Amino acid sequence: MPLTIYGDSMSGNCLKVKWVADFLGLSYDWIETDVLKGQSRTPQFLAMNPAGQVPTVILPDGRPLAQSNAIILHLAEGSALVPQDAYARARVLEWMFWEQYSHEPYIAVARFQMAYLGKAKSELEPRLVERGKAALARMEEALADSAFLVGEAVTLADVALVAYTRLAHEGGFDLADYPALRAWVPRVERALAIR
Amino acid sequence: MPLTIYGDSMSGNCLKVKWVADFLGLSYDWIETDVLKGQSRTPQFLAMNPAGQVPTVILPDGRPLAQSNAIILHLAEGSALVPQDAYARARVLEWMFWEQYSHEPYIAVARFQMAYLGKAKSELEPRLVERGKAALARMEEALADSAFLVGEAVTLADVALVAYTRLAHEGGFDLADYPALRAWVPRVERALAIR
Repeated sequence: MPLTIYGDSMSGNCLKVKWVADFLGLSYDWIETDVLKGQSRTPQFLAMNPAGQVPTVILPDGRPLAQSNAIILHLAEGSALVPQDAYARARVLEWMFWEQYSHEPYIAVARFQMAYLGKAKSELEPRLVERGKAALARMEEALADSAFLVGEAVTLADVALVAYTRLAHEGGFDLADYPALRAWVPRVERALAIR
Repeated sequence: MPLTIYGDSMSGNCLKVKWVADFLGLSYDWIETDVLKGQSRTPQFLAMNPAGQVPTVILPDGRPLAQSNAIILHLAEGSALVPQDAYARARVLEWMFWEQYSHEPYIAVARFQMAYLGKAKSELEPRLVERGKAALARMEEALADSAFLVGEAVTLADVALVAYTRLAHEGGFDLADYPALRAWVPRVERALAIR
């Protein structure tokens, strides 16, 4: 049985898993799962992942796994996307946890509210905009003298962070204010061969 | 140079690092860092961790590391707290990412608003209460027929989740509604020798 990925193509968290599987040359079945239509809340889905979230994968041995960053860490272990050096690995994890706590809840949520719920930029909560900008500024600083977030090659830290940073404009953020970040997005897309 | 931990004793995220260091028998210096007094936003602190968050550690070789879950994964690698089996490791990571995205932002934030900002339970945002209860229900289900979150021994998944679950009552949540969870908290505290 190949890897099965339950994902919503509109979700950066789901695309992380697709990009890593493609980069690694894994074969997989993609089951499109529309979150807005409740397809991640059916009894069948909840039996796989009681949290009712995408992405959820079924591994080739039939066992389920959830949480985008846990999935890509599992799939990419031993590949060039996960540094061998213990400290570099720890820094990759640091960025990945930071992404889920300090970046996604602002950058992805602002994009969701504007692109899917139809809110205007002026209707976003000020806190969302402020914290989103702080997240982008933090990345801009880190990329000022480094081609990628950890070291000089693409890692899962870049995968995790590019997912919604490349769509930040859909949430009203202007990457023109962050030149290092704006150059990093296509650099990561090329390194991962994201179309 | 021993490990140096910059932490606020009131923060469950910081205590995770202390518990793991104690469990592993690591020697460390604890530098009490009062977030409410701005001590994680000084120029000196931001030079170590530009995100301005605790916990932040300085490893024995002088290099900094942030994000509670990245720190404890780095410290505990190779110990009994991180399973050797690849799938069990992935499940531990799944819980740890879920904790930062779907548990801490509700359970810890409700506690912060009540215990530190002086809000009454009735003043909490309904969304905070609802999502906090959903997180506790998710854990209750997972613990219905398992002593610990991943397998039958304590792992970093339990460390990450117990940090704020044991304080959930300070945020207005009643663990009496979650009997498996209520039994799990002291089980984890005993396994980690948390006082």
